Amino acid sequence: MAEKVTIATVARHARVSRQTVSNVLNAPHIVREETRLRVQDAIRALGYRANQAARQMRTGRSRLIAARIEPTRDGINGSVLDRFLHGLTETADAAGYRVLLYTATDDEREIATYDDLLGTYELDAFVLVGTKYGDPRTAWLAGRDVPFVTFGRPWDALDAHPWVDVDGAAGTAQATRHLLASGHRRIAFLGWPLGSGVGDDRRAGWRDALRAAGIDPTGLHRETEDGIAEGERLMRDLLVTVAPTAVVCASDSLALGALQAIRGVDPPVSVIGFDDTPVAAAVGLASVSQPLGEAAARCVDLLTGVLDGNHETPTHVLLQPALALRHTA
Amino acid sequence: MAEKVTIATVARHARVSRQTVSNVLNAPHIVREETRLRVQDAIRALGYRANQAARQMRTGRSRLIAARIEPTRDGINGSVLDRFLHGLTETADAAGYRVLLYTATDDEREIATYDDLLGTYELDAFVLVGTKYGDPRTAWLAGRDVPFVTFGRPWDALDAHPWVDVDGAAGTAQATRHLLASGHRRIAFLGWPLGSGVGDDRRAGWRDALRAAGIDPTGLHRETEDGIAEGERLMRDLLVTVAPTAVVCASDSLALGALQAIRGVDPPVSVIGFDDTPVAAAVGLASVSQPLGEAAARCVDLLTGVLDGNHETPTHVLLQPALALRHTA
Repeated sequence: MAEKVTIATVARHARVSRQTVSNVLNAPHIVREETRLRVQDAIRALGYRANQAARQMRTGRSRLIAARIEPTRDGINGSVLDRFLHGLTETADAAGYRVLLYTATDDEREIATYDDLLGTYELDAFVLVGTKYGDPRTAWLAGRDVPFVTFGRPWDALDAHPWVDVDGAAGTAQATRHLLASGHRRIAFLGWPLGSGVGDDRRAGWRDALRAAGIDPTGLHRETEDGIAEGERLMRDLLVTVAPTAVVCASDSLALGALQAIRGVDPPVSVIGFDDTPVAAAVGLASVSQPLGEAAARCVDLLTGVLDGNHETPTHVLLQPALALRHTA
Repeated sequence: MAEKVTIATVARHARVSRQTVSNVLNAPHIVREETRLRVQDAIRALGYRANQAARQMRTGRSRLIAARIEPTRDGINGSVLDRFLHGLTETADAAGYRVLLYTATDDEREIATYDDLLGTYELDAFVLVGTKYGDPRTAWLAGRDVPFVTFGRPWDALDAHPWVDVDGAAGTAQATRHLLASGHRRIAFLGWPLGSGVGDDRRAGWRDALRAAGIDPTGLHRETEDGIAEGERLMRDLLVTVAPTAVVCASDSLALGALQAIRGVDPPVSVIGFDDTPVAAAVGLASVSQPLGEAAARCVDLLTGVLDGNHETPTHVLLQPALALRHTA
């Protein structure tokens, strides 16, 4: 049997102090990335295994976080949350945490699942995806002092809890300004029914960019449930009523529908989607791209900050999207 | 405080015996789906929570299974495993299991992760995705008597361990026969380098279908690493060397590349991909569709069978794919 690998062995191998190895194991977010990677490589190379039970007693942590996987949907917009989940698993891993999956079809069942998970496993925290006005899920967790972070803002009260989000309004504003700069003036918007935080935010970016350019947005937007068929239907309506020369959409699904509707229209109508899904890349659809890997990493940062009681960690992170330009715009 | 909810309460509510409730909790695969759903609804409605610690002692189970999430890739073929993971989480949930995620970039690190996970958590079993000749991961798990099931065949020895797979050769044969029935004779194949179990299997289906129709497949196939650019390059080569009228591809990525290459070719070349990804649906690419939800459910069935020591459960499940016909074929 080989000599037992200890923290000291790892420290020697990675040319760092024992405290640094301990930090990588217990508070990885305070260790510089380069150092953390070197220590993690040494841990792997040497086959070091921290005694989890001992560590859990010391830190009071299971190092297990729960995240929701969405029920299977159309595979277009759903892919956004899949990419977030990939990033979350990778960064949680690097920070010494594992992700436990759950799924739920509505809020009530999701809350029942929290209750079940908390009763069954020693969870450290939850990562919630998607937020909305009056979200009963965050209220339930906050009421029980369960640590959590959301990917998405608490739309009612931005200080309610730690969150990471992407600035959707900045994304649609950027898309709209790009179209304005290309000479478009009648730029429409295809979005979701009024009253959803995310949908209203994306609509506001388009509206404000038009107003800033001295253009009245009245009558230039349409609202529908998300989906390719819905996008096609409303785009046909826009074509016959306001004849826009370009359209900004709240999702790639709506934008794909708009592309169907404008087939054969001459001159071609420009279309920009939202989320830069693999489908958008494949069909050449310009789209607003969310930094999903970074969002996941910042969620893990926030969580480790919360769990460590580090009150200097910022608790709200608003990331900027980018415009992926392709031949539809 | 409300009356304590017991198994008897659930049984009364769901109009089943206490044994049936117990079966839903401990061996759900032996309960008819309709009954299982009714009991699960009653469990949720009543807020019944089985005492996990007691159940674990009784069954020796943590009811935790580990599954890999792939590192983020091109978002096209990766979506297949995402869909599998959705199905796995949903069916595992219905069977009373939770899914713990891990990620790994190569076999060595994946095995190191097994070691870490087994040392850290009380795992019941692993679900592995992707299999290949001489797979070191399955050898490692089998050598330690860790229960596992693979989505993918053990290509060296079909009886090596429990598995669920989709019959890829049947899928490409079906695609080829469809093209033959449409009058095509010079049907090419775009696939992966020789020596991969999955790739060779998909090539064999095309080859055997051609031979059965009295056509010599020699010279009609090309091999490359997966990717849109690679597919486009090899399809251009096929066009100038053998001028096929149709092509069957080992993946949707290769097929999307083939579509780029044939743009403007007249008469149009028919293209069929593999995996029926959301991108295929969006661009109208005909593709072989894998029953991923069923594959995930059968993996959970096999696992519960293995964990229950139920030796009557079949340990190998080969599912049939279907051809999703769209305008490219």
